[in-house]
Amino acid sequence: MFAPPIARLIRELQRLPGVGEKTATRFALHVLKAPSNEAQALANALVEVKEKIRPCSACFQLTEADPCELCRSPRRDHRAVCVVEDQASLLAVEKARTYFGLYHVLGGHLSPMDGVGPEDLKIRELVDRVRTQGVEEVILATNPDVEGEATALYLKRAIEPLGVRVTRIARGVPVGGDLEFADALTLGRALEGRREY
Amino acid sequence: MFAPPIARLIRELQRLPGVGEKTATRFALHVLKAPSNEAQALANALVEVKEKIRPCSACFQLTEADPCELCRSPRRDHRAVCVVEDQASLLAVEKARTYFGLYHVLGGHLSPMDGVGPEDLKIRELVDRVRTQGVEEVILATNPDVEGEATALYLKRAIEPLGVRVTRIARGVPVGGDLEFADALTLGRALEGRREY
Repeated sequence: MFAPPIARLIRELQRLPGVGEKTATRFALHVLKAPSNEAQALANALVEVKEKIRPCSACFQLTEADPCELCRSPRRDHRAVCVVEDQASLLAVEKARTYFGLYHVLGGHLSPMDGVGPEDLKIRELVDRVRTQGVEEVILATNPDVEGEATALYLKRAIEPLGVRVTRIARGVPVGGDLEFADALTLGRALEGRREY
Repeated sequence: MFAPPIARLIRELQRLPGVGEKTATRFALHVLKAPSNEAQALANALVEVKEKIRPCSACFQLTEADPCELCRSPRRDHRAVCVVEDQASLLAVEKARTYFGLYHVLGGHLSPMDGVGPEDLKIRELVDRVRTQGVEEVILATNPDVEGEATALYLKRAIEPLGVRVTRIARGVPVGGDLEFADALTLGRALEGRREY
């Protein structure tokens, strides 16, 4: 139905997460209607991001400069390393504005079913970093799901022998939530994790 | 928080319809994770679509060839012209697979509030086409909203003097709908438009 260049654009747009044919078509028709420089700017941004952005050689977050801004910052606490699965998690922690240490982006979680073992994540690099960079606390902020917990456990066992403090972010009821709607597992963890008040 | 090239990509992605900061960030992180050739393919498709796609000089639908495939097709009924507001409407009518004539894409609807007058739409071109191309029926398929109805009325007055049949798509209850939930206006139109059974 569409001319080949439009069909191609719709097909490429469908690779974006959560974008089906209908949304891709809407995007494509928008691009066709919009001024040429808008499409060109998006095309340039796509190419530029792949050319210029690399993982930081220290923490593996995505960065233009290497080491990244955070790893170079004298205002961050270099004795703390927060381990996250991916860039999106790092961003979420940064947005909370309560953590001012460094990060370590694993690049995923352990998942034997999908063939992801320790050597596929930046675990050796984390251990090296903890051993040589004066790290005093490693905060495990992998996702609170099965794979994230398994990954956290693996990391704890790999890092504890180095004699640094290993902590795990609290699992509990979300702020603003309602106990009535909390699932049993979360509520159980919230009770386990109770603190003096 | 993000390196400038990532921030730029997120900003450009936010121009797509219905894409806010959160979705744009998800798209950008996906692009960063995906192989380079995927980002390059999308960038190329964006540039190509703007370079190669033009409005058909006869019906103004978006096309690579001019006149477009539909306008050149001997299998379409060249005596019927279905007038739509935009490419998305044309696509919707095509998908119904019950119409086999030609189209005329107006490029919007009359909207004095937004400064869109008859000279901003392809109305003169439609009248010329009807006058000179042996058109026998003009089907007004502008949207069933206030602006679409006003545009249809304007077109009816412009085309009727030429002595061709002017029709309007039926307004009524949607197929598969429930009368209980039909709004009064639609139900009123459905009753007005009733036919022998």
